[in-house]
Amino acid sequence: MKLIVNNNFLYSPSRGLGGEAGGSAVPDFVRVHAPATVANMVCGFDVLGFAVNDPYDEMRISFTDKPGITIINEDEYNLPTVPELNVAGAALLAMQEEMEEQRGFELHICKHIKPGSGVGSSAASSAGAVVAANRLLNNQFTNEDLVRFAMNGEKVASGVKHADNIAPCIYGGVTLIRSIFPLDIIPLTAPPLFVTIVHPQIEVRTSDARGILKQQVLLKDAIRQWGNIAGLVAGLLKSDYDLIGRSLEDVLIEPVRSILIPGFDKVKQLSKEAGALGGGISGSGPSIFMLSKDEATAKEVEKQMHSVYEKLSLDHHTYVTNINQTGVKIID
Amino acid sequence: MKLIVNNNFLYSPSRGLGGEAGGSAVPDFVRVHAPATVANMVCGFDVLGFAVNDPYDEMRISFTDKPGITIINEDEYNLPTVPELNVAGAALLAMQEEMEEQRGFELHICKHIKPGSGVGSSAASSAGAVVAANRLLNNQFTNEDLVRFAMNGEKVASGVKHADNIAPCIYGGVTLIRSIFPLDIIPLTAPPLFVTIVHPQIEVRTSDARGILKQQVLLKDAIRQWGNIAGLVAGLLKSDYDLIGRSLEDVLIEPVRSILIPGFDKVKQLSKEAGALGGGISGSGPSIFMLSKDEATAKEVEKQMHSVYEKLSLDHHTYVTNINQTGVKIID
Repeated sequence: MKLIVNNNFLYSPSRGLGGEAGGSAVPDFVRVHAPATVANMVCGFDVLGFAVNDPYDEMRISFTDKPGITIINEDEYNLPTVPELNVAGAALLAMQEEMEEQRGFELHICKHIKPGSGVGSSAASSAGAVVAANRLLNNQFTNEDLVRFAMNGEKVASGVKHADNIAPCIYGGVTLIRSIFPLDIIPLTAPPLFVTIVHPQIEVRTSDARGILKQQVLLKDAIRQWGNIAGLVAGLLKSDYDLIGRSLEDVLIEPVRSILIPGFDKVKQLSKEAGALGGGISGSGPSIFMLSKDEATAKEVEKQMHSVYEKLSLDHHTYVTNINQTGVKIID
Repeated sequence: MKLIVNNNFLYSPSRGLGGEAGGSAVPDFVRVHAPATVANMVCGFDVLGFAVNDPYDEMRISFTDKPGITIINEDEYNLPTVPELNVAGAALLAMQEEMEEQRGFELHICKHIKPGSGVGSSAASSAGAVVAANRLLNNQFTNEDLVRFAMNGEKVASGVKHADNIAPCIYGGVTLIRSIFPLDIIPLTAPPLFVTIVHPQIEVRTSDARGILKQQVLLKDAIRQWGNIAGLVAGLLKSDYDLIGRSLEDVLIEPVRSILIPGFDKVKQLSKEAGALGGGISGSGPSIFMLSKDEATAKEVEKQMHSVYEKLSLDHHTYVTNINQTGVKIID
């Protein structure tokens, strides 16, 4: 799917958000692009995630004289504007609690990452909002603080504070969340990787996808899983594509969750036959991602994904992108 | 404990094993040192292990006209000499099945690694035997083949084929066994690490230590464990000592198995207070290992270990050593 940038959103002076952002001075407003993210990364359930260059959300924040948080949605999704019910709002509220000086925020959100698609839509909103606000605050908070604040948005979205989308969205690249309490985020280097994502237009609620997981697992399956995550981390850090491919195996979560995603097994099989290193469910689905060594393979994988969902007569979007190394990007 | 090398074993011509091993020609006999190993490495149950420089076993192998395998023990442990019941014998039998030409072996074993100590005594015997024999066979087999053969020795010792001692014993350094079937061994680089080991003189049978483990674990504990192993692998490859230390946490196996080891909690607490990065049960115990950044700390840790077991009036041996990078070493 081609991303359609809402140019009107970007520059319209009619919204009364004049002023220039320049140099290191604190600007009147801050605009950011907040990238989509792929959580879990097959064998790294709840602890691994990575950011991609496409799609991304656009957001703009400024101070207002009005206390609290004013949210203005500039997209088609009709998301809540009550701050406590909006993921970006919840993240900003958590941030306000720790701000040195109380200021009100006005946040304009133009989402291109469809909510519920499984590529970190809520994380992009939460993370984008706090990174943008922090720039307005002259970078008062550390990245780790921002992750903490943004996790409050995830709690609104799914009922659980988790950081496997938030952390890569803020840090960029591949991140390991070794621990949530206390928070321990480890950025991991990775060789160039192309990412093909397909989003079949069905709904899988994160809370449902969590609900069907068994609370107990076999020790032998857990051992296989931690052998794989250890292999994946080693493969990423050693730039060993074969090892990355061999390690992209999930014996615990995928067999349960993939049942909710029509065409999953076929997409995986055809993608691998087309040369993908491997892949699986993005977050809690329904999107599926595949990693490839080169763009040509990633595009061939996209073709296979189309063929599966055309046969199933299921609407779907695809992206061919690569790993985003910067995280939320300040535009001006 | 100072290692006492049995010089008589090394050179005695009276055993009729004359001939010179030299250059790359196939020698008449091969002598090896097979190092002790620490399996599991706290959060890497069944998949991680590393070799240490001290203690090690000495072995010597030669061809004989007599078919099969003749085992001659030259130590105090009175281990079985029937090949099928001897771990080194079982490993050699598996090797013989795949040899191009059938030859008999005579194997002399002088163990310095006490059986049942939890630092890979059986693995040293099995791995040492097949590495030595392979040299006699002009390196007919790959290291991966040798791991496969040697795992038959582990089956004799504990009833289960596992490679988390065998692989580091053969490859040296820290190894990840991502998968046993099919075998996938990944050597991991590591920064310099000093290792303090204490072996309290109690018996913990590997089969008992396995038996008390629950076959089911909580998913949330498994997630914590794979966050830690991912952190440990990243810490090793990035030479990040702090990350290694934070990741040396085991929420699944240690709480169950440590009950079998008197003084465990105290050793761990005092070792960390003395500056150790962390550590835990070596293999299935009863030995405990601790990792330190420098030798002075490793020696201070040793003192604390002595103090714990002196108070408990429990006989014990300690080693201060470091990671062995070469694996089984061919002496001549």
